Amino acid sequence: MSLDQLSITLAAIADPTRRAILDRLGSGEASVTELAQPFEMSLPAISKHLKVLEQAGLIVRGREAQWRPCRLEAGPLKEVADWVEHYRRHWEQSFDRLDEYLRELQKKEKKLGRKKK
Amino acid sequence: MSLDQLSITLAAIADPTRRAILDRLGSGEASVTELAQPFEMSLPAISKHLKVLEQAGLIVRGREAQWRPCRLEAGPLKEVADWVEHYRRHWEQSFDRLDEYLRELQKKEKKLGRKKK
Repeated sequence: MSLDQLSITLAAIADPTRRAILDRLGSGEASVTELAQPFEMSLPAISKHLKVLEQAGLIVRGREAQWRPCRLEAGPLKEVADWVEHYRRHWEQSFDRLDEYLRELQKKEKKLGRKKK
Repeated sequence: MSLDQLSITLAAIADPTRRAILDRLGSGEASVTELAQPFEMSLPAISKHLKVLEQAGLIVRGREAQWRPCRLEAGPLKEVADWVEHYRRHWEQSFDRLDEYLRELQKKEKKLGRKKK
């Protein structure tokens, strides 16, 4: 299908393991073995996730032959933040409507409570 | 794989057509036919995209038999905004590093320019 950068970034982060990897890299470089530790996953499975993140430009891997540390590259996430920000007004409005609805419900319950006494 | 809400939301918006549909619905309700118009897509193809958005809770569809208007439900996008916000510090730092690198390059070029004269 499409290969626009935003779609690639979103597809890459639409997986909880890959988000957990980014989260770990947020506190510093790590080797594949270190990244694999918290997950009950084989190294090839982790490597597959790292490849998706690398192709999306969200991580870079060192060139050292033995220990190829992974580093977070958060740049592409800015586009996600910019895109989602357009909808803030909408979700704030819908949470306001929910609040209003719950307040109305409470009022009705109080009225019913008084009538029952 | 996993069925956590954030992964479902991200997978739903990881498609440019689905993002364009949300964008259109940002300015008000629309029927499937209206939503299909700007895309060179069949109604069944559009319906498939709408189903993904509906299952992710990003749109709701009216119950009117003939005209089932779609409405944006931006609520799930708040979680995306909250998640990505954690990385702001990281991308700002990496853009700062890029700025610094470019300034260094410019300095070097100027020096070389002077030497050539």
